[in-house]
Amino acid sequence: MTPPPAPDSFPVYERKDFFRFELLHQSSKEGSRARVGRLHTPHGNVNTPGFVAVATNGALKAVDHDWGNQAGQELTFCNTYHLLLQPGPDVIKACGGLHKFVNRNRPIITDSGGFQVFSLAHGSVFDELNMKSRSNRHRSETSSVLKISEEGCLFRSYRDGRKVLLTPESSVQAQKAYGSDIIIPLDELHPYHIDSEALLRCVLRSHRWEARSLKEHLKDVRQQAMYAVIHGGVDPTLRKASCEYLTALPFDGFAVGGALGKDRDELIEVLRVTMPHLPVDKPNHLLGIADEPSIWAGAALGVDTFDSCFPTRIARHGTLLTQQGPVYIRKQVHKEDLRPLEEGCECFTCKRHSRAYLHHLYRAFEPLSATLLSIHNIAYMNGLMARIRAKILRNEL
Amino acid sequence: MTPPPAPDSFPVYERKDFFRFELLHQSSKEGSRARVGRLHTPHGNVNTPGFVAVATNGALKAVDHDWGNQAGQELTFCNTYHLLLQPGPDVIKACGGLHKFVNRNRPIITDSGGFQVFSLAHGSVFDELNMKSRSNRHRSETSSVLKISEEGCLFRSYRDGRKVLLTPESSVQAQKAYGSDIIIPLDELHPYHIDSEALLRCVLRSHRWEARSLKEHLKDVRQQAMYAVIHGGVDPTLRKASCEYLTALPFDGFAVGGALGKDRDELIEVLRVTMPHLPVDKPNHLLGIADEPSIWAGAALGVDTFDSCFPTRIARHGTLLTQQGPVYIRKQVHKEDLRPLEEGCECFTCKRHSRAYLHHLYRAFEPLSATLLSIHNIAYMNGLMARIRAKILRNEL
Repeated sequence: MTPPPAPDSFPVYERKDFFRFELLHQSSKEGSRARVGRLHTPHGNVNTPGFVAVATNGALKAVDHDWGNQAGQELTFCNTYHLLLQPGPDVIKACGGLHKFVNRNRPIITDSGGFQVFSLAHGSVFDELNMKSRSNRHRSETSSVLKISEEGCLFRSYRDGRKVLLTPESSVQAQKAYGSDIIIPLDELHPYHIDSEALLRCVLRSHRWEARSLKEHLKDVRQQAMYAVIHGGVDPTLRKASCEYLTALPFDGFAVGGALGKDRDELIEVLRVTMPHLPVDKPNHLLGIADEPSIWAGAALGVDTFDSCFPTRIARHGTLLTQQGPVYIRKQVHKEDLRPLEEGCECFTCKRHSRAYLHHLYRAFEPLSATLLSIHNIAYMNGLMARIRAKILRNEL
Repeated sequence: MTPPPAPDSFPVYERKDFFRFELLHQSSKEGSRARVGRLHTPHGNVNTPGFVAVATNGALKAVDHDWGNQAGQELTFCNTYHLLLQPGPDVIKACGGLHKFVNRNRPIITDSGGFQVFSLAHGSVFDELNMKSRSNRHRSETSSVLKISEEGCLFRSYRDGRKVLLTPESSVQAQKAYGSDIIIPLDELHPYHIDSEALLRCVLRSHRWEARSLKEHLKDVRQQAMYAVIHGGVDPTLRKASCEYLTALPFDGFAVGGALGKDRDELIEVLRVTMPHLPVDKPNHLLGIADEPSIWAGAALGVDTFDSCFPTRIARHGTLLTQQGPVYIRKQVHKEDLRPLEEGCECFTCKRHSRAYLHHLYRAFEPLSATLLSIHNIAYMNGLMARIRAKILRNEL
């Protein structure tokens, strides 16, 4: 088993002016690691703790970035895998990079594409825990992943069937073409049920791939930052070891990734054993988790940013987030309700429309429904983060 | 065969301040009936000739009325049939009427619901001319229309299977509940292929139904206007007779409806024989037609407003209207094209986004695509109408 490259084989880390994390406040509440900060990027600032909306194909599904911005969206997540297949990095580069292509002059973070490729190969932890075995068999029989090796991962495009090789280097190059403010290096996603030897093998390969990614990145940094992805599954020793190896390399920040546990308790335990090993002067990110209880727990443990497509996805399916709990807009009770989704909410949807109209649009399958409902949930998430920051500033979290 | 009620059985028409047509200019070009006017309604003015966008279920499909307004939309068309089944007139009334329900403080015209019901019974002219006979058989076997009689039309709701009786009176009452600025009375749609005796029977029934509608309307006018629907198929004598009967009744305006011919030439011929029999001091409307060549021809013949769902429908399917001809956004040629859909267009979409991004959104099946593309086509149609008005003012049409 090849060990990952030694830390001293990397150039010395130099603080880069175009990307820095400003720690504004550390909660003085006992036992808390909660903090309020500000991420400075070439495309503006991100207040932390912050919600990162997911624009898989470059758009927030039914929402224009202009409307997302109005709903307070700062950092936004795009998926390298999807953009690799459509429209492709060359097109985005020819169009002046992702910010110009999607016309959004605020910070963008992209992932490596690995998550989607490995999800296709053996499903996400969620799939693994929830899907019937027959579905899993079906998945492995029809998987579009052709070969996983030390070099990278060969898969077949779901769009046109062509073979695509995703390597640490090609993933970085795609993200260079996008011009993302924050690059995530390629890692190896493993199943939740894995023996300790296989898990170690996986963590070490991720370390090697991330080191290769960083080397590729440092050849031509431009105005981009790179976060490492901390691995180790639910094994505290491996999580600590992963932090130790990756924080010794000149990454600009750290994302907590890999298998994050089978439920929220395990997730919180993973964060509890991981977060203390991350440097306080660098930003961190929790990959793919942004349900409200996890955000509260994560923020208390020092997590700076949280991404998830769930607020916009559930909006499209009629579940709206409010401080009084979820509103299920398809329910008959909203039929003649002239109140907005949430009293006092300043979003475009709440300022313009009643629950009655939103209920009708949803029932009538009007496409506008997805747009209006998503705008509200984005605004809700950003309002939630503002409330969390205020609470930390009062040392109450 | 019952004849329609005599015109002298109606109250004398009195000009209503809340609804009036201001004739601003009549083209002096030889043979032209083109005119520029302004319709004054309780919810603002409509410049004519004007494009009437269709918001079937109360929404412009993927476009909020706020964005439609920004794209210049004045008069908007809603469908009584759809709103009757979802959410229902009672809900709309309880929510303060259609303008408040959909939050649009600009004029709204609604139809009677008859078009949809009769389309279900025997298909539209388009279906009749274009669909395979097997499809037509299938249609008549599965038709949700249960009974058509002098009283009205009994049909089954496609949403929940309940029986709904649409009569001239119930259609007017639904439109009263909506609070539409312009009400269209119930008429009987007939197939394109129909013998002259059946056509006459149909026209006479429409006249009786429209007279009943008008009587129902005049019981409680509120701030609403009612247009008659001129019938007569492609028979010039019947069209003239329909104009004569209906213009003798105190309607506020006239819509040209019924079977409008099998192609554009027949449509223009119908308008040529109909328009001279409509009073110049009242507004008129062409039902369901708003393709560009028909608009130019119709405007020259004196048509004031044109409704059609086609500009937003083709937008959702990737066809964009520009002064340089249609743009098919799915075509590869737009892949890296950083120009807007149309140079100089001031719509939200053209001011923000490139063809390259719109091409990508369309290819990636992003729901935002429908919104952005629809906004452009609405803006295009309103720009087209402004150019037509300018041409008429210069006596060039």
